[in-house]
Parts: sequence; C-alpha cells; structure tokens
Amino acid sequence: MKRFNYIFLSVFQIITLFNILTAQTVSNFNNYEKTADQFVRSALVERKGYNLLKELCKIGPRLSGFENSLKAINWAKEKMESLGFDKVWLQPVMVPHWVRGNIEEAKIVNSKRFDKRLNIADLGGSVGTPKFGITAEVIELKNFNELDSLKDKVKGKIVFFSRPLDAGLLNTFAGYGGAVDQRLFGPARAARYGAVAVLIRSITTKFDDVPHTGVTIYADSIKKIPAASLGYKDADFLSNALKEDPSLKVNLKMNCKTLPDAKSFNVIGELTGSKNPNEIIAIGGHLDSWDKGVGANDDGTGIMQSLEVLDLFKRFAIKPQKTIRCIFYINEENGTRGGIAYEKYADTAKEIQLAAIEADAGSGSPRGFSFTSDSTIISKVKVWLPILKRTGIDWIRKGGSGEDVGQIKNAKALIGYVPDEQRYFDYHHSDNDQFNIIHPREFELGSAAIATLVYLIDREGL
Amino acid sequence: MKRFNYIFLSVFQIITLFNILTAQTVSNFNNYEKTADQFVRSALVERKGYNLLKELCKIGPRLSGFENSLKAINWAKEKMESLGFDKVWLQPVMVPHWVRGNIEEAKIVNSKRFDKRLNIADLGGSVGTPKFGITAEVIELKNFNELDSLKDKVKGKIVFFSRPLDAGLLNTFAGYGGAVDQRLFGPARAARYGAVAVLIRSITTKFDDVPHTGVTIYADSIKKIPAASLGYKDADFLSNALKEDPSLKVNLKMNCKTLPDAKSFNVIGELTGSKNPNEIIAIGGHLDSWDKGVGANDDGTGIMQSLEVLDLFKRFAIKPQKTIRCIFYINEENGTRGGIAYEKYADTAKEIQLAAIEADAGSGSPRGFSFTSDSTIISKVKVWLPILKRTGIDWIRKGGSGEDVGQIKNAKALIGYVPDEQRYFDYHHSDNDQFNIIHPREFELGSAAIATLVYLIDREGL
Repeated sequence: MKRFNYIFLSVFQIITLFNILTAQTVSNFNNYEKTADQFVRSALVERKGYNLLKELCKIGPRLSGFENSLKAINWAKEKMESLGFDKVWLQPVMVPHWVRGNIEEAKIVNSKRFDKRLNIADLGGSVGTPKFGITAEVIELKNFNELDSLKDKVKGKIVFFSRPLDAGLLNTFAGYGGAVDQRLFGPARAARYGAVAVLIRSITTKFDDVPHTGVTIYADSIKKIPAASLGYKDADFLSNALKEDPSLKVNLKMNCKTLPDAKSFNVIGELTGSKNPNEIIAIGGHLDSWDKGVGANDDGTGIMQSLEVLDLFKRFAIKPQKTIRCIFYINEENGTRGGIAYEKYADTAKEIQLAAIEADAGSGSPRGFSFTSDSTIISKVKVWLPILKRTGIDWIRKGGSGEDVGQIKNAKALIGYVPDEQRYFDYHHSDNDQFNIIHPREFELGSAAIATLVYLIDREGL
Repeated sequence: MKRFNYIFLSVFQIITLFNILTAQTVSNFNNYEKTADQFVRSALVERKGYNLLKELCKIGPRLSGFENSLKAINWAKEKMESLGFDKVWLQPVMVPHWVRGNIEEAKIVNSKRFDKRLNIADLGGSVGTPKFGITAEVIELKNFNELDSLKDKVKGKIVFFSRPLDAGLLNTFAGYGGAVDQRLFGPARAARYGAVAVLIRSITTKFDDVPHTGVTIYADSIKKIPAASLGYKDADFLSNALKEDPSLKVNLKMNCKTLPDAKSFNVIGELTGSKNPNEIIAIGGHLDSWDKGVGANDDGTGIMQSLEVLDLFKRFAIKPQKTIRCIFYINEENGTRGGIAYEKYADTAKEIQLAAIEADAGSGSPRGFSFTSDSTIISKVKVWLPILKRTGIDWIRKGGSGEDVGQIKNAKALIGYVPDEQRYFDYHHSDNDQFNIIHPREFELGSAAIATLVYLIDREGL
C-alpha cells in the first residue's frame, strides 16, 4: 500500500503539482491543434512518405558498403533536393564492408535418424568456413553460464545457443534485449573454449522458419569462428534431434567475408531556421539495412518518416524558426559509423543541438516519445500531450533514444519515437522485412506525430 | 492560452489533485502487479485464446440464423463446459434470417466505352432483384443533401452513394461513422424519390476491390429496393466512367432474401463469485459475423478474448469474489437481438450489474478502456493505470462502450475495450476478415488487459 502511494504521488502527481504551481502555458494552443490535425490529414490522405518508402524499397537491401546502399544514398540526396530542402549534403563515412557470399548452407549429417537441410543466415561480420565446410558434433547451450560450466565439452564442436526471445514479456524490445547476447557475443565466447562454429536460434517473435541475421562481435585476441542463425522451427528441429541422437553432426558451409572498409555517406538535409538557424532540431533514422528483406521496417520507415517531417513543413508553407535537419545515418547495423561521424560534426559545429530525435523502432501506430534529457524538459513536453494525442501519441517518458542519436553528447534532449512494437521482431533482420508488411496508416501517423513534436519544439523551445 | 490552462488544469490536474486529497489507495498493489504480469505471460506464451479463435474460424462465417452460427453456438457451449466454467447456458433469442443467395452481380451495360463487371456485396437485409436484374442509369451522389436537392433526377435510376470514409481522421471509427449513413439509410432515402436500386462505395480504409457489406435499414412505409456495396476501386471506376459516359447503365442481379425469424441463442458462461455471487462483472462480444470472410476480427476476437479472461482466472486458480460472466451475444450485426435479450434478463434478474465490458473493436494492441459511468468510477479506475499499463493499456477515458452492452440499462459501468484500430476497417464486414490477419501477440494482450481490469474490479469494486 505504502509503495503504491509513494510511486503514484511522488513521481506522477508531484510532477503534475509542479506543473500547476509553475503554471506552464502553451501560447498558441488552437494553432497547434490545427497544425497537428493538418499534419495528420495530409499524411494519411496523401501517403507521400509511404509512397517514397515504396520507391526506396525497390532499390533493394542497403547493407553498408554495397552498391545498393550507394544507389539509395544518391536517390535520397536527389529526393531531398527535389523536395526543395534549403541545404542537402553528404557527410563522408568509411564503413565496414562485409559480404554474405552465395553459399550459406547447413545440414544434419552422420545421423541414421535425421537427414535435413537447416535454414540459416550468416551472422553479420562472420568469417566463412573452409570450402567443404565444417562438420562437427553439436552442443546445445542456453546461456553463457552453461557455456562456462561445460567449457570442457565445447572443444571441436559447434555450439548451438538456443535460448529463445522471451515471448512472455509485454515489451518485445525487452525480450530481444534478453536474448541478443547469444548473437552478439556467443561466437567470441564459444571460440575461447575451442568451439569450431556457432549456431543460434533466431531472435524473433515469429515462429516460422525464416532466419534472422544481425551483427556478431568478435574479440581481436580470439580466433574468429563462423556463426549463423537458424530459423525458429529449424532451431526446434535441431534441439529435438539432438535429444534423440546426441552424436549427430552438422555440416556448415559459408563463404561470407569481410572486405576493406568502403567509402559511404550520411545523407543530411535541412530547412534553415528563420529566427534561430543555429539551433538544430534533428530527426533521423538509418539508411543502411541488412541484406535480408529490403529493410522496409528497419529502417526505411524511420528515414522516410524523417523526410516526410520536413516535407510536411513545406506542404503547409510553415517556416521553421529553428533549423530542422533530417539525417539518414549510414551503418547503424554493423558499426554505427554514421552516428559516430555525425557526433563528431556536432561536437565542433557552431550550433546548439536542441533535440535529436530517432525513428528506428518500426512502422507501428504511434504510442509515445521516450526522452533522455533533464526532467524539466520532460515536464514541459508533457504539457503538450493534448496536442500530441491528436496524432496518436499517448505518453512522454524518460527513457532511451536510439543507437545513432545516442552517440551525440551535446544535445539538450535525445528522443526516441516509440510506435507500437508488437510486430517489430517478426520482421527484424530477415526476409520478412518487405514493403508489403508496412501499414500505410500506421506508418503515416508516425510522420505526423514526429512532425508535430518537431513543430512544438520549434515554436516553444525545450 | 487561457483555454489551454483551463482544460489542462481543470479536467486532468484537478482530478489528480482530488486523488491526492482523497488519498485513494490500492491495497494489494504488489499482488496486482504480479497477477497482471502472469496474465500477460500466460496469454502471450500459451496463445490459448488465439488457438481457440483458429478453431472457431474453421467453422466458417456465423451470420445470424444460419446453420454455421448454430454450430458455433454449440461449439462455444461445449468449449465453456470443457474449460470448467461453473455455469454455462444458452439464452434463446429469435433472430432475423437473411440469406445472400448465390447471385450477386453487377455490370456496366449500354456503354460504347465501358464493358465491365463490378465487384459487389449485397447489403445485409437487402431485397433481391427480379430474375433478369434491374438495368438503369446511374446517378452519383455524395450525401443526402445532394439527394434531396436532386430528387427529381432520381426516379427510375440506380443511386450511387460514393462518399468515401474520411481517411484523414486519426480515429477510423470516426471516419466510418461519418460515411455509414449512406449504407444504413441510403436505400430507404433514395427509394422515397423513386430510385430503383442503390449502390454504395464500400466504407473501408483499404483501397482494394473487396466489397464490404453491412446492414441497411428500410423504412416500412417505403418500397424496399435492392442495395449493394462496390469495392473501393470499382467505385472509383464507376465514378470515372460516369464522368465520361453519363448515360451508361448498370445491370444488377441479386437473389438475396429474408426468411422468417430463426431460433438462436446467446451463449453465457460464468465463474460464480465466492463472496458476492450476485455482483456481476460481464465481459463479452458478439458471436455472429457477416457472411463475408470468417469474422475473425469482427468479432471472433472479442468472444475468444472474453472466453480467455475466464480461463486465465482458472489457469491461475484465482477464485473471483464476484461472479465473472462471459457473454457471446448473437445478432449484433443485423438486429442486436442478443444484446436486447440479455438486457431484458438483466432488468429483472436479482443481480447487481457491476460492470459490463464489450470487446468489439478488433484485435489490435491494447490502447485503453472507454467508460460510460459516473466520473467517480473513472477516477477510481485511473488509479489502477500503473497496473493496467503492464498489459499495454495507456488510458482510461469517458466514452462509449459497445452496441451490445449499450443495451444494458442498470449497469454501474459500461466499458469498451479499445485496441489500436488503424487496421480495423481494412477487414470489417468483408472477405478480408480472415484468421490470418490476426496478430497473435496483439490479440493475446487484449485477453490479458481485459482479464486484469476484471480482476481489479473483482478485488476493488467500482
């Protein structure tokens, strides 16, 4: 009883009391309402961002360093120019250049009971196998504690990390966060004990057989071993097969490799502020994607919404007082080099980084905005909720922002746009991430919601 | 400026201040949190309601009066019994029995430029055409004002009401509400001026060519004329064709008809309260569907979530103090006879109708609960928000409840479960409403959210 009163009164109601006492006001409430409604209507009816996303997706996947990613960069730059942004430029960034290759195979061998190909996807950054592959027994493990305690049984084997994303949590990102250590660090950890390769169960909420890729991080001091993910159903299959026939082997063939770093770019466009051009409100997502699917949801959505935010200002001839900048970061997926490059720019530019918003949580309906900032800023933005609610936003919270804007050190507020994320990991890093899984209304409300927040920050400051 | 302060301080903050001053408490906050989390986990991991929905959908569409609806009624009764509910019974209801027939055709004739079949769906309750159909010129109108002012041009023609759902509104139900008069009253209104038939543009957010049906309401005193909806694209086609060739005709053939009322049933099951069995918390949706698609979203979802609410109590051996009743209303779609029958029962039963919750807004992620009740009840329930948020619920608001529970006059609170509704009218009353459009996590969170609200009402009262 006590605890409840404490939480409820202290955090929520005291903030409200604070607002009452300081009597924050919004000076042009009616105009703001009207603008929010205009943004919503125009986004939903014209579907301009959605149609641009369709164009972008036709280019194909946009993995850093690939030809396609450069095509998308040029397409984006031309698009920003044709939309009439005040400034458009490319910021050079050197990016990793990992190539999947054309051989990506796994099969169960050496078993009288099982003879099956397994659906796999090389993990991003993985080394390949020798030409005829690696054939070894498989040891299934759930976590690194188990790995450490069974380290003597790992040598010469393929380690199969099979712990699924915890589907019992409301928040799918929390479920993902609880399982992704297997992908990120599993190969390096297993190699330390002499494993010859690693398989992981795909980290997904969709129980089909489409493997989900994503980056793995090797340790420099330890041998790099090949690593791939298994489709969810094939992970179940392998797990059951191992119970019946522990001596089965898996043959793994992969010819992925890492080439020298390649030249690439962040794409940046802006509407220059009419009053305070050196105060920057940045909104962005990442242009690169994995090479599975076409990155419609991750993160074609975020960059096309960001583009549409600026275009919504243009559509209604709203002159921003501050500079509104949209940034398509390159290489979020396997290096964050674009985010780091922009951070270096922001560190030294004679600009005030007022707010940096990231849209990289998919194309679901708007739910909220998550703020990494001083709590007085959060209190101020909460006063805008009646306006933001008109775009589908239900809450403003303290919390994380995003991988790219998280690099920026000198911003007053780092902000993450949070759409509904129940479907996000159905598609994430896999062939499921196609344009046809984007719902036009849910996508477009994201553009309108972010545009409204940007507009309010532009007019009211932070 | 004034207005904003007034709204924000008076409605929201004053309620909060009121809560502070009256120091409402929730006596078992930790237990409630734990129970909410258990409901979420069990629903998401076991997917029991989702799997039951799959079974239900295999029976096929469940239009009132049809054999299939009786099959579904028996299936539901047996399911409630096998789940071990304390009481299960069928409440008899006489329902309309309208039959679509096997001829449902429209084509453009009498035009040198256009020769095309149009995709149509008879409106529910429509009369059929003569055997060789009705062939007539078409007059396109946007609304009843236009109809009234052009009434002299309507005689002998097919009236085509073509005003689309307003896609520019955030709330799709508001868009639907602004267009559905054409379907509900268009045929009766047009018949008054001598029209021979009515076509309407499907009221939908999906711009494909699947026609969406739904009930039309004739006036007793005016001739009943055949009425059907056109797929969205064919509505565009006809509209454009009429601009180029205003003298084209449409031939319409339909052999739908209305048979005498048929015997049917509400299906009701309950867990009897251990302390206050005469206090009823009812949760339900409608068992009937249209005969297009299989009614997975409308409203197989609502009834299977309601079933799962009771089953979640059973799963965790939670004995309710009050009686928790789940009601599968029959005939919401074309008569609300089930809702009316239950209301008559509730009027005279020696029971206190504490809360009647309706789940009939689809299978999207949980957003909120909408209350038709005294505002003190809403204030009380808002105090539970930190618990409800663990199931994805972001708000409690004053507002409507649902077509079926809306019949009940003596309930302390009528409550509507509000999931995200951006996709709802993509599927509504059409062949698009299939089991495969249901997202398992979004569906299951609905079960957990409603179960948590029911649990809190059971423990804390209203």
